[in-house]
Amino acid sequence: MLNLSLLTDLYELTMMQGYFYESREKRAVFDMFFRKQPFDGGYSVFAGLETLLKSISTLQFNQEEIEYLKSLKIFQRDFLDYLKNFKFTGDIYSVEEGEIVFPNEPLIRIEGKLLEIQLLESLLLNIINFQTLIATKSARVTEAAKGKAVLEFGLRRAQGIDGAISGSRAAFIGGAVATSNVLAGKLFNIPVKGTMAHSWVMSFNSEIEAFEKYSEIYPENSILLVDTYNTLKSGIPNAIKIFKKLRKKGYKNYGIRLDSGDLEYLSKEARKMLDKAGFKEALIIVSNELDEYIINELNNRKAPIDAWGVGTHLITAKGDPSLSGVYKIVAREKNGKLVPTIKISNNPEKISNPGIKNIYRFYDKNNNMIADLLVLIDDKDEISKIKKHNIITFYHPDYNFKFFELKNYKSYRELLIPVMKNGKIIYNFPSLPEIQKRCKNNLQSLDETYKRLLNPHIYKVSLSKKLRELKSNLINEEQKKFEGAQFNEN
Amino acid sequence: MLNLSLLTDLYELTMMQGYFYESREKRAVFDMFFRKQPFDGGYSVFAGLETLLKSISTLQFNQEEIEYLKSLKIFQRDFLDYLKNFKFTGDIYSVEEGEIVFPNEPLIRIEGKLLEIQLLESLLLNIINFQTLIATKSARVTEAAKGKAVLEFGLRRAQGIDGAISGSRAAFIGGAVATSNVLAGKLFNIPVKGTMAHSWVMSFNSEIEAFEKYSEIYPENSILLVDTYNTLKSGIPNAIKIFKKLRKKGYKNYGIRLDSGDLEYLSKEARKMLDKAGFKEALIIVSNELDEYIINELNNRKAPIDAWGVGTHLITAKGDPSLSGVYKIVAREKNGKLVPTIKISNNPEKISNPGIKNIYRFYDKNNNMIADLLVLIDDKDEISKIKKHNIITFYHPDYNFKFFELKNYKSYRELLIPVMKNGKIIYNFPSLPEIQKRCKNNLQSLDETYKRLLNPHIYKVSLSKKLRELKSNLINEEQKKFEGAQFNEN
Repeated sequence: MLNLSLLTDLYELTMMQGYFYESREKRAVFDMFFRKQPFDGGYSVFAGLETLLKSISTLQFNQEEIEYLKSLKIFQRDFLDYLKNFKFTGDIYSVEEGEIVFPNEPLIRIEGKLLEIQLLESLLLNIINFQTLIATKSARVTEAAKGKAVLEFGLRRAQGIDGAISGSRAAFIGGAVATSNVLAGKLFNIPVKGTMAHSWVMSFNSEIEAFEKYSEIYPENSILLVDTYNTLKSGIPNAIKIFKKLRKKGYKNYGIRLDSGDLEYLSKEARKMLDKAGFKEALIIVSNELDEYIINELNNRKAPIDAWGVGTHLITAKGDPSLSGVYKIVAREKNGKLVPTIKISNNPEKISNPGIKNIYRFYDKNNNMIADLLVLIDDKDEISKIKKHNIITFYHPDYNFKFFELKNYKSYRELLIPVMKNGKIIYNFPSLPEIQKRCKNNLQSLDETYKRLLNPHIYKVSLSKKLRELKSNLINEEQKKFEGAQFNEN
Repeated sequence: MLNLSLLTDLYELTMMQGYFYESREKRAVFDMFFRKQPFDGGYSVFAGLETLLKSISTLQFNQEEIEYLKSLKIFQRDFLDYLKNFKFTGDIYSVEEGEIVFPNEPLIRIEGKLLEIQLLESLLLNIINFQTLIATKSARVTEAAKGKAVLEFGLRRAQGIDGAISGSRAAFIGGAVATSNVLAGKLFNIPVKGTMAHSWVMSFNSEIEAFEKYSEIYPENSILLVDTYNTLKSGIPNAIKIFKKLRKKGYKNYGIRLDSGDLEYLSKEARKMLDKAGFKEALIIVSNELDEYIINELNNRKAPIDAWGVGTHLITAKGDPSLSGVYKIVAREKNGKLVPTIKISNNPEKISNPGIKNIYRFYDKNNNMIADLLVLIDDKDEISKIKKHNIITFYHPDYNFKFFELKNYKSYRELLIPVMKNGKIIYNFPSLPEIQKRCKNNLQSLDETYKRLLNPHIYKVSLSKKLRELKSNLINEEQKKFEGAQFNEN
């Protein structure tokens, strides 16, 4: 495997060298979070943790990497010697893969030496941003498919090799049941699917010959691509001839794939033709530039489609090809103690939530999610109130005057759990099907109004009283430094 | 390195097994082309060839891959034995990296045994689609920057690890002069750049202390991030204090980075403040969700910006996160001869150009590109006319009645050249800076009207007379088969 120690922005290393000489032992805490739901959606699905932790725990700079860094002539020998023996020794807390997450929630928290946790930024954001983005897109597509299978066919249009591989992993987490990508199938034990391309049909003298040869070799799974020449006049009639032969021989897993044309019209016509010929069990699978909106519309129009092959727009997250996850310092060591710190901005939504926090998620008696609350982990009073099921006050993350009280919650969960301690993984990775199942269960706890494709209901992520106060106090302190000045212009 | 033999859609392997039993020695020819310019732009920049050829030439199925395929229970022992010894033995013709390309031009042509060239489809499309997409985006961004440096900062938002690595490579080809991605720097010898993040500034007791420490460690290259607290009241005044010290010590490579706020307003204010303090040489570098449209607008408004850090939207190709490249059979063996074949569609633009072709590009006396002509490689008359600089007739790719004549061309080039023969690379890979230079030179030959961001001039890609006739004849033949039927509905 490629050594990933250099998969980092140069400034992580220049800062790291700075810390190495200025404050080698200084500790800090960073949160990874994102500020905006992708696709103007109502939720995201967290993914990428296993990939990330395995990368971090094996991170090391070998001679080759050290030589390269030396060649840049910006790093000093002491520092390079330090890198040679680098091993991450910090602690990581994370939400689990398949968890439903929202803007401004700490999804991963890293505590340790500042120079070590700084190094992880680019790698962490690269892995988590992408897998979370694709798991989210996949969940949206899967929800639109309303229980019908979603097959991920994105390899040829993915953004690079890992875009395809990690993308298949994340798509499976979000709900796709299979992939066309054989390597992803092997690496992650995802079911693989696929039958034929137009080139198969075109390489024979006739369509019927191409179908015949295929069904002789693969009688147990003959999905015939019927749109090479003329779907209704040639493809489907020829497919029916083949299905008759297959049925005679006792086979029953057959069907057609439509890859072009109007999929509502063609699927309805195809269903009529297949049913009329007595092949009610023949599947209709469709593909061709599908996304959640097209699937949703075809389902609303009752197109008789049994499975959806979704490629390009799933694997590249059409609409929002990047998740805007960031990695921000929330506490730093000062006089031997970790003190909360804040990133100020003129734009209230861009001001970070300071301090070391956990996410508490509250459920009603039907196991539906009510709201999330960010709580400082040393806020014993608040945590004790939660445990006792007392009334909890939820404060708006940006405005002091906005709050509400929650009385009747049935249960709650803490979302951030320890996954790495002193650089060692202390988390049992669930299998990918388990993660997929968790995602599915979580989505069932989320009210339908949050899942609307257009203008969804906004799920509440609030601050506890102490966190609200801490944030206000730190903002005031920062403001005082520039008395009379406009707030920062960002 | 990861073995890429399984980085393929399952159907390539099922088709391959089919060919293995049906027509093991049958030959065919495939073209890779795309149908639509990304970003509604006027041109694309071809990239990814070196990555592709190296992957193809090392492609082999080891025991591990064979075992996995066996476990799927769809492949027979003979075929798996064949795969064990698989080596690609075909010929590849390609345009070179950094070449300007247009829809429906064959960018890569592969000739060989059908079962071998079928296998390459997914890998080829994955690599070429992505790198061509990013090289194109980078060229657009670089053109908008009008000679000022573009720095690629995309790692944290790229689609996976290879999205970042191959993305940096392609961004460099398109014109970015450096990357923040250290691993890409090492792998491709791209200059790496970067200084500090907000976390550096926030980890100190004050901004000035953070700047001071940084400039002590990196006096030769002190680009200070000035927007952590208050750009105009704190960041720039503090930076100026540091520049004074640096100048006294004889250093002169310093500047500021703006990462938020209104970049026109702030860069103009910053320039005034820096100039007034006597630091006309201090650089202003900006970043924050930039793309070609924002850069173009800021340049039009004369924002005094010296370099552009472009991350998310370059590396993920905002606007069009996938290139719709396809891989289609254009000739197949029939009675021992390669005969042209065509993919029919009701949509004229989706009908493929049949047969084995090359691209001829014509230039005027100022070395400006005039138009491209697709010519069948065995069309000796046409090629001889071109060589003699006779009048050439250019036919519209879709409509028989549309054509024009070209008389006064100064020179021409054939774009497809042999790069692999019998599975062996026969091409000397240029260095990445050479490819970047070729791209730049090519763009200079392309009239400005084709480079407009909005509604660009459409460059003409035409068919020779023989190719136009071949296409029409094949369409008529196909139509006859479904006399009275509507054309296919796609």
